[in-house]
Amino acid sequence: AGTEPNGECADASIPSLEYADPDWTFERSVEDPTALGPGDHVTFEKALSDEDVRAFAEISGDTNRLHLDDEFAAETRFGGRIVHGTLVSGLISAALARLPGLTIYLSQDLEFAGPVGIGDRVSARVEIVEDLGNEQYRLETVVRDEDDDETVVDGEAVVLIDDLPEA
Amino acid sequence: AGTEPNGECADASIPSLEYADPDWTFERSVEDPTALGPGDHVTFEKALSDEDVRAFAEISGDTNRLHLDDEFAAETRFGGRIVHGTLVSGLISAALARLPGLTIYLSQDLEFAGPVGIGDRVSARVEIVEDLGNEQYRLETVVRDEDDDETVVDGEAVVLIDDLPEA
Repeated sequence: AGTEPNGECADASIPSLEYADPDWTFERSVEDPTALGPGDHVTFEKALSDEDVRAFAEISGDTNRLHLDDEFAAETRFGGRIVHGTLVSGLISAALARLPGLTIYLSQDLEFAGPVGIGDRVSARVEIVEDLGNEQYRLETVVRDEDDDETVVDGEAVVLIDDLPEA
Repeated sequence: AGTEPNGECADASIPSLEYADPDWTFERSVEDPTALGPGDHVTFEKALSDEDVRAFAEISGDTNRLHLDDEFAAETRFGGRIVHGTLVSGLISAALARLPGLTIYLSQDLEFAGPVGIGDRVSARVEIVEDLGNEQYRLETVVRDEDDDETVVDGEAVVLIDDLPEA
């Protein structure tokens, strides 16, 4: 399987492409849902802006001032505001959604390994490590802060890949 | 420790209260960060609206049509659009943020046990199950869809509780 360039054309096997933002990048090693197996991977990358963080606080209810209040955050161990860990982990979900087929999330383990500064570009890479049968796959899931060149989330997911609905 | 009524007054030990939305509810069993221990718990509840889901798609990049496209979602096993699992898990983060002190997320395991329909009211309950020392605690984290009366996310978190910065 070759590597797909960054969403250049609408591909019916990627349910999400039509909503793509020009600032987002992704690549994947496989196009055919029936060919998925260990070693296949997807990477998704975007910046996490101040606007994103404020929106996440509002929609999730996580209004921890560490994420929202410069003066407060300056006095914490981080020395400044950081992105919500759960929002960072959302990029894993975005990468999983770009597997061919319809991805359904069954489980996710997360270790928050380091902070993401407001505005940093972050990439999530998911790689199938085991075919569990019944269209279920276990994946290694790693998020990196590309500006800091650091791993910020490490973990594993299990997903179910359903057939896409007929167009 | 008593149960705190729903954010009636700004409490300096809850970093997030000043941003609270009248639609949100929370309660907690403990006010004093130095008194935290097994059995202490926080519950946080809000509705997850269509607007929240569309905002989450944009900020995370997870534009899976299962969350965004009625026609597409109608043909899936869910029979309609559902809320992103990661957004649902964000309410756990919102509950953890309401522990007294400054909560820092170290890890989270999630099992997505069932779908959340668009607009459903969802509650996250976090309860300390172990004091790990060094201001670290392990918590049981459960999210329920209150409209469907179902557990939708089950899991565990580990957090570090730092002192709040001096006002």
